[in-house]
Amino acid sequence: MSQFDALNALKTFRPSNRQADQLRKVTLETGVTRYAEGSCLITVGHTKVLATASVEQGVPPFLKGKGQGWVTAEYGMLPRSTHTRSRREAAAGKQSGRTQEIQRLIGRSLRAVVDLKALGERQITLDCDVIQADGGTRCASITAAWVALSLACDKLLEQKLISASPIIDQVAAVSCGVFENVPVLDLDYDEDSTAETDSNFVLTGSGHIVEIQATGEKRGFSRDEFNTLFDLATQGATELFALQREAAGK
Amino acid sequence: MSQFDALNALKTFRPSNRQADQLRKVTLETGVTRYAEGSCLITVGHTKVLATASVEQGVPPFLKGKGQGWVTAEYGMLPRSTHTRSRREAAAGKQSGRTQEIQRLIGRSLRAVVDLKALGERQITLDCDVIQADGGTRCASITAAWVALSLACDKLLEQKLISASPIIDQVAAVSCGVFENVPVLDLDYDEDSTAETDSNFVLTGSGHIVEIQATGEKRGFSRDEFNTLFDLATQGATELFALQREAAGK
Amino acid sequence: MSQFDALNALKTFRPSNRQADQLRKVTLETGVTRYAEGSCLITVGHTKVLATASVEQGVPPFLKGKGQGWVTAEYGMLPRSTHTRSRREAAAGKQSGRTQEIQRLIGRSLRAVVDLKALGERQITLDCDVIQADGGTRCASITAAWVALSLACDKLLEQKLISASPIIDQVAAVSCGVFENVPVLDLDYDEDSTAETDSNFVLTGSGHIVEIQATGEKRGFSRDEFNTLFDLATQGATELFALQREAAGK
Amino acid sequence: MSQFDALNALKTFRPSNRQADQLRKVTLETGVTRYAEGSCLITVGHTKVLATASVEQGVPPFLKGKGQGWVTAEYGMLPRSTHTRSRREAAAGKQSGRTQEIQRLIGRSLRAVVDLKALGERQITLDCDVIQADGGTRCASITAAWVALSLACDKLLEQKLISASPIIDQVAAVSCGVFENVPVLDLDYDEDSTAETDSNFVLTGSGHIVEIQATGEKRGFSRDEFNTLFDLATQGATELFALQREAAGK
Amino acid sequence: MSQFDALNALKTFRPSNRQADQLRKVTLETGVTRYAEGSCLITVGHTKVLATASVEQGVPPFLKGKGQGWVTAEYGMLPRSTHTRSRREAAAGKQSGRTQEIQRLIGRSLRAVVDLKALGERQITLDCDVIQADGGTRCASITAAWVALSLACDKLLEQKLISASPIIDQVAAVSCGVFENVPVLDLDYDEDSTAETDSNFVLTGSGHIVEIQATGEKRGFSRDEFNTLFDLATQGATELFALQREAAGK
Amino acid sequence: MSQFDALNALKTFRPSNRQADQLRKVTLETGVTRYAEGSCLITVGHTKVLATASVEQGVPPFLKGKGQGWVTAEYGMLPRSTHTRSRREAAAGKQSGRTQEIQRLIGRSLRAVVDLKALGERQITLDCDVIQADGGTRCASITAAWVALSLACDKLLEQKLISASPIIDQVAAVSCGVFENVPVLDLDYDEDSTAETDSNFVLTGSGHIVEIQATGEKRGFSRDEFNTLFDLATQGATELFALQREAAGK
Repeated sequence: MSQFDALNALKTFRPSNRQADQLRKVTLETGVTRYAEGSCLITVGHTKVLATASVEQGVPPFLKGKGQGWVTAEYGMLPRSTHTRSRREAAAGKQSGRTQEIQRLIGRSLRAVVDLKALGERQITLDCDVIQADGGTRCASITAAWVALSLACDKLLEQKLISASPIIDQVAAVSCGVFENVPVLDLDYDEDSTAETDSNFVLTGSGHIVEIQATGEKRGFSRDEFNTLFDLATQGATELFALQREAAGK
Repeated sequence: MSQFDALNALKTFRPSNRQADQLRKVTLETGVTRYAEGSCLITVGHTKVLATASVEQGVPPFLKGKGQGWVTAEYGMLPRSTHTRSRREAAAGKQSGRTQEIQRLIGRSLRAVVDLKALGERQITLDCDVIQADGGTRCASITAAWVALSLACDKLLEQKLISASPIIDQVAAVSCGVFENVPVLDLDYDEDSTAETDSNFVLTGSGHIVEIQATGEKRGFSRDEFNTLFDLATQGATELFALQREAAGK
Repeated sequence: MSQFDALNALKTFRPSNRQADQLRKVTLETGVTRYAEGSCLITVGHTKVLATASVEQGVPPFLKGKGQGWVTAEYGMLPRSTHTRSRREAAAGKQSGRTQEIQRLIGRSLRAVVDLKALGERQITLDCDVIQADGGTRCASITAAWVALSLACDKLLEQKLISASPIIDQVAAVSCGVFENVPVLDLDYDEDSTAETDSNFVLTGSGHIVEIQATGEKRGFSRDEFNTLFDLATQGATELFALQREAAGK
Repeated sequence: MSQFDALNALKTFRPSNRQADQLRKVTLETGVTRYAEGSCLITVGHTKVLATASVEQGVPPFLKGKGQGWVTAEYGMLPRSTHTRSRREAAAGKQSGRTQEIQRLIGRSLRAVVDLKALGERQITLDCDVIQADGGTRCASITAAWVALSLACDKLLEQKLISASPIIDQVAAVSCGVFENVPVLDLDYDEDSTAETDSNFVLTGSGHIVEIQATGEKRGFSRDEFNTLFDLATQGATELFALQREAAGK
Repeated sequence: MSQFDALNALKTFRPSNRQADQLRKVTLETGVTRYAEGSCLITVGHTKVLATASVEQGVPPFLKGKGQGWVTAEYGMLPRSTHTRSRREAAAGKQSGRTQEIQRLIGRSLRAVVDLKALGERQITLDCDVIQADGGTRCASITAAWVALSLACDKLLEQKLISASPIIDQVAAVSCGVFENVPVLDLDYDEDSTAETDSNFVLTGSGHIVEIQATGEKRGFSRDEFNTLFDLATQGATELFALQREAAGK
Repeated sequence: MSQFDALNALKTFRPSNRQADQLRKVTLETGVTRYAEGSCLITVGHTKVLATASVEQGVPPFLKGKGQGWVTAEYGMLPRSTHTRSRREAAAGKQSGRTQEIQRLIGRSLRAVVDLKALGERQITLDCDVIQADGGTRCASITAAWVALSLACDKLLEQKLISASPIIDQVAAVSCGVFENVPVLDLDYDEDSTAETDSNFVLTGSGHIVEIQATGEKRGFSRDEFNTLFDLATQGATELFALQREAAGK
């Protein structure tokens, strides 16, 4: 029996009728674009994110001549991926603070599981574009981006441009939060917009932490609550790792 | 028999093996996003564009108090919709001249078939986002945007926010060009990048011209060539109008 | 007798009392600036545009080492060139979509008649600055820019920096439109702002089409109307070519 | 005895010779500017941050008429606050992603301890400007900003503009990290630039979590390591709360 | 005899063969644009600046409801007004520091001789656009702008929109400098680029100083030198005032 | 007795009770930052400016290979250095015209006393950041920047990177103005905001003028008034030179 049975007994309180420790339905579809070296369309309930991996020769100036590669990410939302239309960032003339924060997080998360030396002097850019947003887009982006990255590295191996995969571990991300005073896994938009606490856990396949971001949106939260969120995230990530391996053909 | 039989006899010269007067396979899928008032995903061969229609109360300042609505468009390409990755315009901090030119064209084309008075003081924004680009994205955008716009207007009618449809005609667009000295319909990327001439025809269901843009890319072209391009476009648009009516349920 | 006699019989309907196929008075003055390698001030009725050609060594990055030159254009309007003052684009911090669209058109039009290989690894920039605007500024810009470009190439020849002129044909542009349901040549501002249809024809001295842009501003227009506009433009361009040759000393 | 005695036994490994659970010397000086409604200059070792609180009537548009106030923050570094000069963001024309991330964090952290209704329709802006940077500037900013905010609220009380303090708790922040495989409190720049893990804990006086950000910079880290970091942060924050109360005269 | 006879005895040292106290040939042509409420094209040797005055209802936000008007200025250079082409500021996306400095100076200079109360709640914008630059463009701009402003005020009087002219004095500007160790009047580009000292004097018809800017470009300069520059400027301005009165019909 | 005794007899009219020829209390504190090659915190009454000198290898592109160095300056105000909060320029996305004008002035002033050849191919950037503003910040910036620059050059000498000091003279700046019709030295904010005339004198230790900027804010001013302002400035600068020498250890 799950350690969350007590929480689950309260399950009907979730707008989606999910149990406290239940992810939304997640699918990872690969090969969805014709040109990208790797691509993965993730759906997490109504959230849909397209992640593409683009391999380019050369590295940014600050890495020139250091004999290593680079992995970076960019994030964007289609203007009508949201309930009401958001302004197009290209028209606004800049990326919002939120966008920059998210794309920095995605890039850091992936670099944590890549051996940049093994990648050689090339850059892989992960573009994560949100087609439809129903909460959890940054976590979905990380989870899908790992698959796209993995496929792009497979292609480099096939083309014998590298001799060993630079990917040293899996990485996936999941959000948790305290909703109506109960810790729950994988917040959707309805939950997220009213949750007392929102947190994102970026974890590796081998059980390590890459990044934790936890915020008390409505109130501070206790260390006990935090620990339960962490347990939920660990369980959720385990499910995501299995789906990633299947999608990436590992 | 088609008037283009002589051209078609030369058909094998097209990289795609299409006849001179043959469109790529076109599909129009509607209801593809959960939030937009109207949406249409068009595929034209490998080109894929997602058009969404967003209805908002109010109009831009220059129309305040004039008792009419507004229809406008924005256009964007996902960074890896292209063969090699393009820079994200939001990161670059501005929309390129090409992007602005295209979105102005889309907006003008749709306004030509809308009775803005009948729309009331509301604005409909058509977002045309290119998921995959293989030539002809501006034409595909116009064709799909009309469907999304039509569905959004149906919704306004259903909600009894307007009493008659503001849409007074269909509008669709198709490109033609002179490729290896032969006028052909619906250029794909391979053809477009080497064609002598590129033209876009925006036409209405009732047989009128909304916009013509014709450019000699490699050389000037003759009026005879132009007239053949026009004939090809007229035939192609007829096929698109039928697909639009089917998609929009008319 | 002109083929437009039937249209001209209606002549009094034009605010300017011109005949349907009558250009405004056009003058092309050269040598108007002290520094530019070529310059031409065009007046078309009340419209005045100053075109200067600046020769610079080197080419843009995308042409480095290809053994060819480049021709490009920039367009601007003085803030009070218009009936009411427009905001200065330098103060606004960006060029409008309209400005970018026009300067891209001017550049394309000139490149269509230049042998870029014969130009060598140098760039010629045509600056088209509108001193006074009364309609038709983009067409006037193209017509004047060709003269400025021609003079700049003469200077390169004189200085023996090139051995043959890279200019392979003339190019000029003229607008036409359907005004009060009658096709007319060379719209001025009064006509342009109420015309049903606006079109710009960029044509070469040898009778080819470089670019056509035709837009139904108030309504779609028929192919017959379009053909009449094309005939008017062809006649108008013939007059402009003669004036260009005279100005450029050819 | 401290629970960190085992860690402290290793103390000589820190470049600063501090014990594992030892903060740098922290001072909080108030009243340092003549105009701001509240101000606090914090020094944490060589790190110096000036926080000022500015009270303005009115709230941002999204809060108009909701009967509540707003607290926000901006962050900046003087160009030569760092070891080598950094580019001035005003000259670069935009705030970096890092800057935006930090100022969003400061704002969220303070709002977590403010009753925005009790503040009335006014905005308090906390400007946190780094005079000298030696690691930990975002944490120092939060700790000092709370003092400046508290003083500004006292002033509003004195002026009888509000009847009760809107501040409902203290908030302070401290960084921790795993340095040479040992969890330590309050990283300075030397440690931060080589630490395996970096984390920031924003905690309230009543023992709740406002925000946790923990990142594996060089490698993922274990949950045990994380728990030790959390313990260290809790101890460090307790010291900061005492200093804040003293500075704010509470 | 002029007080500068001793200087003039050295006259052949000036590249232009002018005497030390000799202005270049100055002409002021009015009514040069069709739309502006006032316009003046000034030529000072090879320097040509077009100044237009645009009257608009309303004032900037900081003056709303204060029962007074505003006078402001903008300055620009055509890209090829200079010896070698300069980058277009609209394309660069911002106005240079130099441009802003100059347009602030022009605005201040004109406001010094305008009774803003008498102008009523309207704004007059002086656009000073440099057609050709051979030194002294900021001074030429001020001198011409006063004429354009004066004509625009006459028009307001004619239209009985104001009952008395808001212009309370003339204002003109002239540059002086120390060239080859000799103080001279009205530097042209050749002199300006090698002068030891450059200064601009903005003076009123009634003999007062509006603005002095004097800079030692190559070396500091003495108070005696400065006083001679001041004398030269006073003499030059007297000539400009006469030309202004003639141009403005006063 | 001072030549200003007559003016001083009127002394009580100054809000600060200073005599007409009396500077505010000035202090120059050096070594105030840990990283900068030279630093100086100047206080002039309530005005406080931090000037830092940063030495970097290399020169801007326009000086490459000319065997000389460069000295430049940047200026900024902390948002709450002023009576009411000013918008942060980094957030606004650009530096104001005023900021650019001031930093150009500071750079020019310092370059006037530096032998750029003797500096070698390196750049020294003077950052002048206003901590608190009570009038006279640009003058205070220049005065302090010279001290910071001098210290940075001493460091280069000590490190034997240069063999002789590139500093050939002192430079300091002081403002004067006509306040309630009396010329006074060193305007503070209260005086500056109502003064009829504002002027800044940048003078060298050897008695030369580097820059004069004098503006009639409320009215034009006479040459006699100007001469008195100049005398006051000369006296004030003499006091500043002594303080500079003491601070710089000369």
